[in-house]
Amino acid sequence: MKKKVVLAYSGGLDTSYCVKYLQDQNLDVYSAIVNTGGFDKEELQDIELKAYEMGVVKHKTLDVVEQFYQKCVKYLIFGNILKNNTYPLSVSAERIFQAIAIVKYAKSMNADYIAHGSTGAGNDQVRFDLVFNILAPEIEILTPIRDQQLSRQQEIEFLAKHGIEKDWKKAQYSINKGLWGTSVGGAETLTSNKTLPNSAYPSQLKSSDSKVIKLEFTNGQISGIDNVEYNNPVNAIIDLEKIASEYAIGRDIHVGDTIIGIKGRVGFEAAAPIILIKAHHLLEKHTLAKWQQHWKQQLGDWYGMLLHEGQYLDPVMRDIEAFLESTQKTVSGTVEIKLSPYQFELIGIDSPHDLMSSKFGEYGEMNSAWSGEDVKGFTKILANQTKIFHAVNQIDIEL
Amino acid sequence: MKKKVVLAYSGGLDTSYCVKYLQDQNLDVYSAIVNTGGFDKEELQDIELKAYEMGVVKHKTLDVVEQFYQKCVKYLIFGNILKNNTYPLSVSAERIFQAIAIVKYAKSMNADYIAHGSTGAGNDQVRFDLVFNILAPEIEILTPIRDQQLSRQQEIEFLAKHGIEKDWKKAQYSINKGLWGTSVGGAETLTSNKTLPNSAYPSQLKSSDSKVIKLEFTNGQISGIDNVEYNNPVNAIIDLEKIASEYAIGRDIHVGDTIIGIKGRVGFEAAAPIILIKAHHLLEKHTLAKWQQHWKQQLGDWYGMLLHEGQYLDPVMRDIEAFLESTQKTVSGTVEIKLSPYQFELIGIDSPHDLMSSKFGEYGEMNSAWSGEDVKGFTKILANQTKIFHAVNQIDIEL
Amino acid sequence: MKKKVVLAYSGGLDTSYCVKYLQDQNLDVYSAIVNTGGFDKEELQDIELKAYEMGVVKHKTLDVVEQFYQKCVKYLIFGNILKNNTYPLSVSAERIFQAIAIVKYAKSMNADYIAHGSTGAGNDQVRFDLVFNILAPEIEILTPIRDQQLSRQQEIEFLAKHGIEKDWKKAQYSINKGLWGTSVGGAETLTSNKTLPNSAYPSQLKSSDSKVIKLEFTNGQISGIDNVEYNNPVNAIIDLEKIASEYAIGRDIHVGDTIIGIKGRVGFEAAAPIILIKAHHLLEKHTLAKWQQHWKQQLGDWYGMLLHEGQYLDPVMRDIEAFLESTQKTVSGTVEIKLSPYQFELIGIDSPHDLMSSKFGEYGEMNSAWSGEDVKGFTKILANQTKIFHAVNQIDIEL
Amino acid sequence: MKKKVVLAYSGGLDTSYCVKYLQDQNLDVYSAIVNTGGFDKEELQDIELKAYEMGVVKHKTLDVVEQFYQKCVKYLIFGNILKNNTYPLSVSAERIFQAIAIVKYAKSMNADYIAHGSTGAGNDQVRFDLVFNILAPEIEILTPIRDQQLSRQQEIEFLAKHGIEKDWKKAQYSINKGLWGTSVGGAETLTSNKTLPNSAYPSQLKSSDSKVIKLEFTNGQISGIDNVEYNNPVNAIIDLEKIASEYAIGRDIHVGDTIIGIKGRVGFEAAAPIILIKAHHLLEKHTLAKWQQHWKQQLGDWYGMLLHEGQYLDPVMRDIEAFLESTQKTVSGTVEIKLSPYQFELIGIDSPHDLMSSKFGEYGEMNSAWSGEDVKGFTKILANQTKIFHAVNQIDIEL
Repeated sequence: MKKKVVLAYSGGLDTSYCVKYLQDQNLDVYSAIVNTGGFDKEELQDIELKAYEMGVVKHKTLDVVEQFYQKCVKYLIFGNILKNNTYPLSVSAERIFQAIAIVKYAKSMNADYIAHGSTGAGNDQVRFDLVFNILAPEIEILTPIRDQQLSRQQEIEFLAKHGIEKDWKKAQYSINKGLWGTSVGGAETLTSNKTLPNSAYPSQLKSSDSKVIKLEFTNGQISGIDNVEYNNPVNAIIDLEKIASEYAIGRDIHVGDTIIGIKGRVGFEAAAPIILIKAHHLLEKHTLAKWQQHWKQQLGDWYGMLLHEGQYLDPVMRDIEAFLESTQKTVSGTVEIKLSPYQFELIGIDSPHDLMSSKFGEYGEMNSAWSGEDVKGFTKILANQTKIFHAVNQIDIEL
Repeated sequence: MKKKVVLAYSGGLDTSYCVKYLQDQNLDVYSAIVNTGGFDKEELQDIELKAYEMGVVKHKTLDVVEQFYQKCVKYLIFGNILKNNTYPLSVSAERIFQAIAIVKYAKSMNADYIAHGSTGAGNDQVRFDLVFNILAPEIEILTPIRDQQLSRQQEIEFLAKHGIEKDWKKAQYSINKGLWGTSVGGAETLTSNKTLPNSAYPSQLKSSDSKVIKLEFTNGQISGIDNVEYNNPVNAIIDLEKIASEYAIGRDIHVGDTIIGIKGRVGFEAAAPIILIKAHHLLEKHTLAKWQQHWKQQLGDWYGMLLHEGQYLDPVMRDIEAFLESTQKTVSGTVEIKLSPYQFELIGIDSPHDLMSSKFGEYGEMNSAWSGEDVKGFTKILANQTKIFHAVNQIDIEL
Repeated sequence: MKKKVVLAYSGGLDTSYCVKYLQDQNLDVYSAIVNTGGFDKEELQDIELKAYEMGVVKHKTLDVVEQFYQKCVKYLIFGNILKNNTYPLSVSAERIFQAIAIVKYAKSMNADYIAHGSTGAGNDQVRFDLVFNILAPEIEILTPIRDQQLSRQQEIEFLAKHGIEKDWKKAQYSINKGLWGTSVGGAETLTSNKTLPNSAYPSQLKSSDSKVIKLEFTNGQISGIDNVEYNNPVNAIIDLEKIASEYAIGRDIHVGDTIIGIKGRVGFEAAAPIILIKAHHLLEKHTLAKWQQHWKQQLGDWYGMLLHEGQYLDPVMRDIEAFLESTQKTVSGTVEIKLSPYQFELIGIDSPHDLMSSKFGEYGEMNSAWSGEDVKGFTKILANQTKIFHAVNQIDIEL
Repeated sequence: MKKKVVLAYSGGLDTSYCVKYLQDQNLDVYSAIVNTGGFDKEELQDIELKAYEMGVVKHKTLDVVEQFYQKCVKYLIFGNILKNNTYPLSVSAERIFQAIAIVKYAKSMNADYIAHGSTGAGNDQVRFDLVFNILAPEIEILTPIRDQQLSRQQEIEFLAKHGIEKDWKKAQYSINKGLWGTSVGGAETLTSNKTLPNSAYPSQLKSSDSKVIKLEFTNGQISGIDNVEYNNPVNAIIDLEKIASEYAIGRDIHVGDTIIGIKGRVGFEAAAPIILIKAHHLLEKHTLAKWQQHWKQQLGDWYGMLLHEGQYLDPVMRDIEAFLESTQKTVSGTVEIKLSPYQFELIGIDSPHDLMSSKFGEYGEMNSAWSGEDVKGFTKILANQTKIFHAVNQIDIEL
């Protein structure tokens, strides 16, 4: 009896090569594709068709969009997480959930091997390997692309020899689409000094005027757009993306440290993620106390870093999620945003939890909650430590 | 002999009231204004004239722009410091240097009192009081405006009774200008849900096209614009502000926690600070190692927070400056930026210290510095701890 | 009708003075004492008797030991919290729960005022004021001792004039006892260079030999001592204190920054807290992953700092509690400890969640879970970033 | 011509095996031993003798004690660094400096290979590999012991076949000695629940009474013991170790996460390091401001973690050193310590920089620097944010 391999399959050249190569190794190939929001029904059917054409024993489509939102995207919003202050972790986050779905499928199938088509120079290989190693150390990982380092031409020739002849034209830009944004790689992103042309991005500017929208948040989660209520935040994200991508909003280039220690640069377009994070963050500036914001920043950045580096399964991630969840009790209200071509502006918020209430004193205006004497006492005591430090150490301020 | 009071004087209604009020208390009033980049010669002469009209014994202009840059702004750039991810601390930073200059002047004059005209509901009163308390606990602080809580009308009438009749019309927006940006307060910033109109900002859009500029950094400090070398970063900041403000760049509204615990909201325009910080940050993403960036973020945020809250003299600030200074050894190179109306885009960088060098492996591309086997070993070991944690605790991942 | 004041009353000279002084102000005095574990029944009855002798309208004993454990001590153990790496926050923590109990009682009584007997130079005044200000800003706070700064003699004379003559002898050491330890202040703690004599501590050495005990933890909480099961951790703490105090364990001097900015020094004896924290910490070293320990340290220290400074009601404290709670899922097992005069030694742990399992590789011993090649690949990749940094920047290591 | 290999040689069985094995590979073996304080002259001569007996081309002794102190130990004291709150990083720190010395020697010799004798289950292999990979990626690393996983018996037989017959008896405990402490591994440290017997530690109790010593610190560095001045801190450390080890002080067991992700346990004795760190820490509690201590803790812990994990060459380490150095300006003074069998007590400090000066207010005692009204104002303002949070969100405190 042949041994079984579950292959993370996308229908592209690399994973098509993998199918044939693995079959050559006398393995039964079970292909699987995981949808985290990047594929529509038609695309998934097309991929399934291709898989069977390649001769897989069975092809499986695993849809995890809901779980991806509930177990990850939600916390990325709670934490206002932008890697290096820029990138909403579009691909990073999805890979983890793809890997988990694949490994669970492989275990349910009693697979002997899991295979993926990542190369040896990126983050994805590490994300896949890590999740597989952690959740199924007993299943061996096969990575023909990384191991063999073939050129596209060599792969095409190998497939041709195995009777698979297709028009494997290489797209000018490598695009990865999902619920939480689209990444764009190309010749420019391999340099340090070039940006992507507008045409490289998935959405093109369709509106030249401006438009104000209202986002409703309930305990940190998106629950409404322009007075339309959403029970499912996933749908709100999808609809917001449609609205905002007409303005070609949410594009940038992320420069970061890869898990394997080299620097990498990748373009992305993520209108809904960027707007949601910035709107949510503004709402928090009004509704959270100072140290809540301080620690959310620390823990959110850390969550983003570990997620980016494939460490979603580290137990500290569950602890950080508990923290973030706890902070969202008062993060409810409406945020108004003005969309314009290539940019957006946060207008303001309205919330019953707004701590900037004139009842308690207005910034710069006099009030009745405390007196000038109170502030005088406050600063006198607040100055104590540094005053003593300067006096004891006779520090002279040169200016 | 009358006792001496040194008054931080701006020529406006509040501090003019202070002059007369303090004279009424049988004090010799010595007025002083500190320039941190917000006033030109003419304005300073005008203020001096006004001071003498009010009958001060002596008026002093203290210019601290250079020191302000060397002892503070420099570190705000090193640390990429934007309070609450938004505000370059324009006013916050300047107040401290104004307070230090005033207290040093007061000490040199053997003043018996120091007076300032801040109200009792903002941050400035705390900044002034803190610095005065720390550096000259022996000098008593007088704060007539905070203590008396008079209306504008009452102040105007008091001045009229003392023979000072002027057209004290209240500007619609309260503007504070300095080297590191301009703050704008108005009716809208007292709400949570309104933005400032374009007209409220000091600069108006003058260019409708786009323009690419090049900023040169040397060890983290700005040293050139478009191939023009600057020995003095202060001049580069001033010139960059001129170039960029034509595009009405760098405007936003800061929402934050005041030192006295209420929420506050303030508009600002800071084209040069925002561009410099973002350009500098991008250069660092290419030239610093991962943990350098991580800790710079922590310490930079903290530096910004303490500075904002008037704690510039806390000794930890000197320690953080030593850290930040140490990180800038490799932060040299050029950053290209595209200016457009109301926005700008970072194009890329060029630096001899760029760690994203294809010599050492390209992101997503195969290379010769390591093999697929190396990464396989890497992820196997990297997975160890979480793998053991999941095995020992038999955690089942539901998805 | 007279106005009502609720007074935090201890039966000592200061709060006795307060009763009479407040009665003189034409107030109805309602005394209350809060027990956080420091008083037995007899002492509480004695205090009640004294209160009525002083002529209070009503005296109330508020017992909050259980809540103190459930809402605070539990988290101090979860977080291994020792302020400045030394002090289990014995008094700091209790004051908060005393203040909360008092303010709730005052509100339930519709009191017009709340009074406490703290002086103006310590932390307690701030803790009381903060809690009162936050939970009942509408009730005015009266602090006769702080306001009047009387000497003991003046207070004694005032009481004598009001018919209260007692033997108000001042103890050589000021002792504060509670569930979570006993603080000891005296002449020595006002210096920087003297320790307290053995006799100043509440417990005296009774055992000169050594003894091994076993503590059982369930999800971070103490649930057994030497095979005796405890349903209520409070009882376990009390019993552990009895066992360990015979060895005069858990004494030290805490040197720290007070809330008002001066340095303070206080002795303490806290056998059960210190042993519990150290034992719990050891169990965590075996059962938690690296980053869980890292963040617990950060958040635990912060929790301790805010608690110490009276900020228990800051909402971030609830968020940190959620984090800490989440980390304790695997912190179950037994810790063996050897008690000896004035010291103890942690022998080791036994836990089903112990991650140091030989199944997964032994430190320093070869194993089958990975190969030398794996580690070679691991370190090659791990070296990448710093290798590139050194190569790009041509750093020469002098040694 | 044969190729050259530089071998980190200790004279023990493993590295002796390496000599012969490498010679068998047709390599010229250059042995080198690095002294970081663990060897005296005689031992080093003995090792040299052994090396030549094994037939090395050349043997080299590299003494780096001074550099080890100046470039590392100094910062471990500045940062009060105890890994997992316990371990002074005795071995961890030394390995790095041994690795750097070896790689520099190898480069100076134009070696083709570097070899070390570490096994595949510990931290040392990673430390060596990392430093070698970073500083000399062009030199290949040979690790016969890790690769071959031979038993002791197999090594002994191999050596016998090569004419080397010695009494290779295995010590019951594996001991690693250096300037910064001695580590002790044995059967007990491979369990989770056993401690080392007294006899396993290098020093045995020689004094049964107590003794008070005085340590003088100058800018954070040890500069005197009991009124004897030391120009060289290395000598002070050596002498302090002699004094304190008579009391068998500074023993404990470190439980930690290894670099390769498994848990490890190791005993150590480090009288001088532990006393120096605790004394230095106490001095800092008196002489540093609150936030200096806060950030020193964060950065010190991080420095310790990276050092432990072999990442001493990460550029952030230089930045942290700059921070730590900056904090030590006021850390001068004397600390008194009472040594007793198996324990010590910090008595107190004396320093011109002591911030706990009665001139500025005594803890718990009234003073003239501020009034009760000042504190009242202070707490009123300090309560503001949480008061507003509770009011806006109508939080009810259950107790």
